[in-house]
Amino acid sequence: MPRFSLTPLRTLRPAARPTAARFAAVKPQHLASLHSSARLDKAAPDVVKPAQAPALDTTGQPTTDPMTGEVIKAADIDLSRLVIERTKNPKEIPDTSKLVFGRQFTDHMICVPWNSTTGWGAPKIQPYGPLNLDPSSTVLHYAPTLFEGLKAYKGKDGVPRLFRPDKNMERMNRSAARLAFPTFTGEHVTTLIKKLVEIDSAWVPTDPGTSLYIRPTMIGTQAGLGVGASTDILLFVIASPVGPYYSTGFKPVKLYATTKDVRAWPGGTGGYKLGSNYAAGVVPQQQAAALGYQQILWLFGPEHRLTEVGTMNLGVAFSRNDGSVEFVTPPLDDMILPGVTRDSILSLLRDHESGKNRLEGLPDKLIVSERQLTSEGAGHCRRVQGVTLREIFGCGTAAIVSPVDGIGYQDELIKVPVGEDGCGDIARVMLREIVGRQTGDIPSEWSFPVNEQTASSS
Amino acid sequence: MPRFSLTPLRTLRPAARPTAARFAAVKPQHLASLHSSARLDKAAPDVVKPAQAPALDTTGQPTTDPMTGEVIKAADIDLSRLVIERTKNPKEIPDTSKLVFGRQFTDHMICVPWNSTTGWGAPKIQPYGPLNLDPSSTVLHYAPTLFEGLKAYKGKDGVPRLFRPDKNMERMNRSAARLAFPTFTGEHVTTLIKKLVEIDSAWVPTDPGTSLYIRPTMIGTQAGLGVGASTDILLFVIASPVGPYYSTGFKPVKLYATTKDVRAWPGGTGGYKLGSNYAAGVVPQQQAAALGYQQILWLFGPEHRLTEVGTMNLGVAFSRNDGSVEFVTPPLDDMILPGVTRDSILSLLRDHESGKNRLEGLPDKLIVSERQLTSEGAGHCRRVQGVTLREIFGCGTAAIVSPVDGIGYQDELIKVPVGEDGCGDIARVMLREIVGRQTGDIPSEWSFPVNEQTASSS
Repeated sequence: MPRFSLTPLRTLRPAARPTAARFAAVKPQHLASLHSSARLDKAAPDVVKPAQAPALDTTGQPTTDPMTGEVIKAADIDLSRLVIERTKNPKEIPDTSKLVFGRQFTDHMICVPWNSTTGWGAPKIQPYGPLNLDPSSTVLHYAPTLFEGLKAYKGKDGVPRLFRPDKNMERMNRSAARLAFPTFTGEHVTTLIKKLVEIDSAWVPTDPGTSLYIRPTMIGTQAGLGVGASTDILLFVIASPVGPYYSTGFKPVKLYATTKDVRAWPGGTGGYKLGSNYAAGVVPQQQAAALGYQQILWLFGPEHRLTEVGTMNLGVAFSRNDGSVEFVTPPLDDMILPGVTRDSILSLLRDHESGKNRLEGLPDKLIVSERQLTSEGAGHCRRVQGVTLREIFGCGTAAIVSPVDGIGYQDELIKVPVGEDGCGDIARVMLREIVGRQTGDIPSEWSFPVNEQTASSS
Repeated sequence: MPRFSLTPLRTLRPAARPTAARFAAVKPQHLASLHSSARLDKAAPDVVKPAQAPALDTTGQPTTDPMTGEVIKAADIDLSRLVIERTKNPKEIPDTSKLVFGRQFTDHMICVPWNSTTGWGAPKIQPYGPLNLDPSSTVLHYAPTLFEGLKAYKGKDGVPRLFRPDKNMERMNRSAARLAFPTFTGEHVTTLIKKLVEIDSAWVPTDPGTSLYIRPTMIGTQAGLGVGASTDILLFVIASPVGPYYSTGFKPVKLYATTKDVRAWPGGTGGYKLGSNYAAGVVPQQQAAALGYQQILWLFGPEHRLTEVGTMNLGVAFSRNDGSVEFVTPPLDDMILPGVTRDSILSLLRDHESGKNRLEGLPDKLIVSERQLTSEGAGHCRRVQGVTLREIFGCGTAAIVSPVDGIGYQDELIKVPVGEDGCGDIARVMLREIVGRQTGDIPSEWSFPVNEQTASSS
């Protein structure tokens, strides 16, 4: 069984943005064979290597020169140029009970501009406020936009902690490369985010289950209607306090398995966190809601492979007659977003499976699989000798886990078991373990205190 | 052979936006069978019919009540509320020779806001200027954006004419419905565009081949990070003078047929003009450019079906041993954008085929087909007994036609014939006939003078 990795099957090597001018220097090798049917020397490279610009690898580290082995110095975000402009009109911090997801924002935001000629500009932490965009800005027309979602949690010691920001930065750089946006050293943006959270620390709620949702975003801002790589980019980060997801207990959801609309496809961008993956999901979601379902179960292909749940990754568990339990999530490919929560759950479950870190409440004999699932398989397995559908849940940063108690598939409503609390065993334990690491109650290298000096040693 | 139509195979019926509140009124019929495997009464509807909001059909006309047959009054854009604010600082109109596509904009723009509670606001023609968008605006995160492209041309009589704006408005309404945006009566926006072109009439260039490119756009402007239908929308229209495409003669392009990246797929949005279809094409285009190719030839499926060329539709012609010529373009489906130029070309060629309107320079025996094409078929047909590849071109609003003289497919460069002028027969005649109708030189119902009073009778 292949071990889990956030690295996708087919990685693009993020490189500093190749611009039209840089491309002009690339010799069009195959034009020599113009007007002939001569064989081409080679196929298109996975990613074009720009002639002069520095390159970063998927973790945001500078790459080495393939000829000399020397590290290529990257034109990176320069933290020494950080400008902080504090608001003169701090807003009233809303009561936790009145929070609506993503509607209230903290007093400050991060902005880092990039231009293809001048590179990264000075990072700025400034008062939250509107962006002035030319109506021809490329993001408004061709959707060059990517985003991330991560959270800061206040522990009992009052210190806000980020949860696995390194994973978000790694994915953000992959998304950036996919859009011909510039890449950057992930740790630099993490440092800026820590600073933002420190400045807006009073906005991080403390009630159990609450957090500060952080939204790093990159958009193409070039004014001009030509379809091509944007010469101007804005990286910005905003933050929004969010209330507890399960304040009144678990609310299991029913999924509508659509056989009409398809979220992602081989050779597409479903494995990247791009804005363009989301707009088309709204109408199918409305159609599902009108039938009484809370989320879409996205299928793919003639065999109706299960891929994702709404904007979450998918987890399914089966009981076997031999007493073992198999946990399955679809493998990472062009169609599956490499979710940070997905990665955390696989990691925790595999440590339990291997005996490295046994977790109370999980099945004794647990088998963790990344493999394809079909709706037929998930729905009808209860009739298959020796296998019983045990649990289905979605997982993502917003809810951590979202238990499922039914799937509308074709003309049938498939019942999915949940416990008396509305949640299955695996999802319940995963919520407990992940929240523990988010708040710092369970020591973990996944937890990044925003201020190392004042934080406890967790 | 099925006749061509702009109606896609699977149409969504655009309806005024169903909001969350409206959905609350929809009875979740299937929840009655909750926690059972009872059969569902019916599958999801094609598009949810909102409880109270008026609906428009795909041409922007109000629909009729299915029970009473009465016309349902649509909450539409109200032209009587038009406000015109003229600029106090008119810009210098650039010389035609200095125009770069989509970089210079006229003095004015159209803005029409929409809100889910108050409906369409007053249309405004106002000085061209930046949009103020909250950093949480949904268009910056989830890419709810659609656009159109059409052109105004000044004829010998000095009257600017729009080319087939009705087709653009029809498609814009289809796109809007696909994004859960409000729809509108297309003629109303055409009227606003005519007014804008009249006001900025001095910006419509007059040199042969020049035009004013008009860009209607709709974006979701709601401030908030929840993924769902935007409660606030902005419809805006900007306009940009563009120079002649073929001032120095035809420049045939070489296409790189990528077998790695896929533009569109069944169940996706390739048949709608959404911004989200474009962002992912930039990196493949860069990779093709680095190999010396001007455009991507988008393939689909294991048989490598030919679908589109860059951001254009595709036309291919074959000569047969019996002296006939077959013109082929892929049929409209989820993967093919219903292009206005594509439609115009099919219409002109079919009138030639049927004898209704013979065009000089086209093959005597012409067969017009909408059918699937494969790269193998296109590339190797010259070796097939009785069939010879004759011509390939892209077609779209920007270039009208774009002749192709080579395709890099797998490890081969397939030569495509062009005439001495760099263009094939069909593309050359189509350019002449379409430009004639755009400028008013050839009388046509496709030409819409912006001011009926002053225009000649064409």
